[in-house]
Amino acid sequence: MLKALREAVLEANLELNRRGVVIYTWGNVSGIDREAGLVVIKPSGVSYDAMCADDMVVVNLENEVVWGEKKPSSDTRTHTALYRAFPRIGGVVHTHSPHAVGWAQARMEIPCLGTTQADYCSGPIPCTEPLTPEQVERDYEGETGVNILRAFEGRDPMAQPMVLLAGHGPFAWGKTPDDAVHNAVVLEKCAEMATITRMACGGLPPLEDYVLDYHYQRKHGANAWYGQK
Amino acid sequence: MLKALREAVLEANLELNRRGVVIYTWGNVSGIDREAGLVVIKPSGVSYDAMCADDMVVVNLENEVVWGEKKPSSDTRTHTALYRAFPRIGGVVHTHSPHAVGWAQARMEIPCLGTTQADYCSGPIPCTEPLTPEQVERDYEGETGVNILRAFEGRDPMAQPMVLLAGHGPFAWGKTPDDAVHNAVVLEKCAEMATITRMACGGLPPLEDYVLDYHYQRKHGANAWYGQK
Amino acid sequence: MLKALREAVLEANLELNRRGVVIYTWGNVSGIDREAGLVVIKPSGVSYDAMCADDMVVVNLENEVVWGEKKPSSDTRTHTALYRAFPRIGGVVHTHSPHAVGWAQARMEIPCLGTTQADYCSGPIPCTEPLTPEQVERDYEGETGVNILRAFEGRDPMAQPMVLLAGHGPFAWGKTPDDAVHNAVVLEKCAEMATITRMACGGLPPLEDYVLDYHYQRKHGANAWYGQK
Amino acid sequence: MLKALREAVLEANLELNRRGVVIYTWGNVSGIDREAGLVVIKPSGVSYDAMCADDMVVVNLENEVVWGEKKPSSDTRTHTALYRAFPRIGGVVHTHSPHAVGWAQARMEIPCLGTTQADYCSGPIPCTEPLTPEQVERDYEGETGVNILRAFEGRDPMAQPMVLLAGHGPFAWGKTPDDAVHNAVVLEKCAEMATITRMACGGLPPLEDYVLDYHYQRKHGANAWYGQK
Repeated sequence: MLKALREAVLEANLELNRRGVVIYTWGNVSGIDREAGLVVIKPSGVSYDAMCADDMVVVNLENEVVWGEKKPSSDTRTHTALYRAFPRIGGVVHTHSPHAVGWAQARMEIPCLGTTQADYCSGPIPCTEPLTPEQVERDYEGETGVNILRAFEGRDPMAQPMVLLAGHGPFAWGKTPDDAVHNAVVLEKCAEMATITRMACGGLPPLEDYVLDYHYQRKHGANAWYGQK
Repeated sequence: MLKALREAVLEANLELNRRGVVIYTWGNVSGIDREAGLVVIKPSGVSYDAMCADDMVVVNLENEVVWGEKKPSSDTRTHTALYRAFPRIGGVVHTHSPHAVGWAQARMEIPCLGTTQADYCSGPIPCTEPLTPEQVERDYEGETGVNILRAFEGRDPMAQPMVLLAGHGPFAWGKTPDDAVHNAVVLEKCAEMATITRMACGGLPPLEDYVLDYHYQRKHGANAWYGQK
Repeated sequence: MLKALREAVLEANLELNRRGVVIYTWGNVSGIDREAGLVVIKPSGVSYDAMCADDMVVVNLENEVVWGEKKPSSDTRTHTALYRAFPRIGGVVHTHSPHAVGWAQARMEIPCLGTTQADYCSGPIPCTEPLTPEQVERDYEGETGVNILRAFEGRDPMAQPMVLLAGHGPFAWGKTPDDAVHNAVVLEKCAEMATITRMACGGLPPLEDYVLDYHYQRKHGANAWYGQK
Repeated sequence: MLKALREAVLEANLELNRRGVVIYTWGNVSGIDREAGLVVIKPSGVSYDAMCADDMVVVNLENEVVWGEKKPSSDTRTHTALYRAFPRIGGVVHTHSPHAVGWAQARMEIPCLGTTQADYCSGPIPCTEPLTPEQVERDYEGETGVNILRAFEGRDPMAQPMVLLAGHGPFAWGKTPDDAVHNAVVLEKCAEMATITRMACGGLPPLEDYVLDYHYQRKHGANAWYGQK
């Protein structure tokens, strides 16, 4: 079932490891088949060295396992919440990469300080509100998704494909699992650059709006002309 | 004697090196056979490149060498103090990994700032008191163990399997030597993340208690459901 | 056309990647044939893994493609602005290396704090003014070149072969593409060292002018005697 | 001439590179044959990839080349000044490793903050005074040696085998070239740990003297018992 997608999700999980944004089992990638309404996700607590495509788990958007022998990632309900709410995304990634976690623990959004971030994100990298005790009791992973959606009210998730969870770490998404991994790596790098800026000058001087817009549109606008397209 | 344990302890020492938390001879791992009451530990000052299972040293809980031709690690008396006091641990690790040492030198516990730490530790990573001149004169390595035990009065060592020694560096432990190494790597990463949080916001905002509890229980509680068990 | 230069420019692009100053497509190198008045530059948005010499694009100094099937780097107009204004340079590099970007986002020049920088640069690493809305509208990449030239009024570009673009990142140049890459790597390292100095003492104590001059002249002056020449 | 020493010095230079404390030609190692009164040193400006034992240069303690076809390191006169003044050292190393340079640029000694440093150094890592204009004019490299000797008045160079040059970077030494490289790597790591301590707590809390003494003596005192001796 969904063999090609399972292979793509496996490969995206391994890429997370190769890019140095995860250690041990500290991350997971999923991908969705929109026609079938099914999500392929990494199994819970399996190490990257030992994983194969048959270990991937297929769940539906109500979080029920429909294929596979392993338990799905403990963060599955956050992934499916994003797929249900953001109809254009095809892949979701969660990591504990250190700079992104450092800022998530600071409970700060990362303002757009430069064109590196503007090439991928039309504004800041938002930070969610912390979960309330009631949310944790009700459904920790599902309510994590709820808080992400709240942070994106009035925002376009395709234009800001990344978020920090207060006291936790980053999620990123994209058109495909591979694209989501790319955005997770970019987020870690932007967080690292923000840390360095803060150490250099003690502040976080924002990029001019018109430069942000120019860079974002150059890569993602209706008349984008970056790359070979 | 204890061949399988010696091989496991060797492998755990090499894993320390592969994970980048030691250089030269700056770390050591031990493991215990509880039935025999014997501890296998890295020899003192031998480099990781040249070590084999026959170089491992077997000592009893009174620090007497009972097998092996090499001298045991200079930190042996700290290891055995932990094994005597914490009956459920099976492996102990000491390193000089840079972020953990940086915080140990700052003589600060690392508060639980996020879920990365909460997944392994039910609270802060404690920091011991410094040794007094009398303690150093009496038995530096043994008294280091005494100070760790003091820092753990009222704490469960299985639920907070890591500690910082003021002005020195980290110790971690676990059910097996391999598990102890895993915890030492986690400690280094949590220390790095705390450094970044501090640079990002100038403070150390604590994780909400109820989130800490949720994450810790998810992996380690009576009804833990993380992973494939 | 210009086969040897295309191979040198390809090799210099790959060297950027090997030196760890770029990820994905976050950088580009060009080289010029001064007799022909033609510039060879990396294609836009092509990854380093897949690039070959035939992918390089040849443009003239008016930014017209004269050879090659790919689109040239989106930063081409900045490269050519530098070649037109600085007649002695033979290669230009742009990266998003993290420490250099961190300082560019801080919108600070990097003062000469030590002999590491003095060995390559006869003064600070300048930082441009930000672009105005009019400049962005008129010609973002060309006006980026204009701002670099303004930052170099009264400076010798051969003696300070590197610059930070406010809110963006670094450019470096040199006698050849390879030399330009070398300078881009040096710039990243000097930025990292400046960050550490700032963390160590909270300030940026300048190197004495007479030491700066001695070191720069030792390598680059009329009677330079460093190396095997 | 001095083939075995040339091979040891070559190997020590390559080890600098493998340990990640140099890039390009930013470092040099020398060794001395005390009976012959001759020093073997890295050639100036030759890259580590291409170096062989025949490229090493032999100089006497008056800095005259007595064997070899290459020019010796531009820092030769600093190396020989140390060999003349410190009769027990057998190897000298200079690098531009980033944390050590960061502190040298801050013009601060690195206090002994923890046992990592105490295992190698019986006190702080001293920082020299800056050179005066007269010193630079007279003999930059020789006077660099003079300033190191001044910083060591009243200190035992075997017990503090490392120093920071204000506005420049580190020198380290030891009984052999290999031992000197080991000390240069230790210095970089201690500088990194000091940076982290400073970020964690905003200060530099000193290690207790009696702990410093215990650790240093354990490895280097008359009754040292660390390692397999």
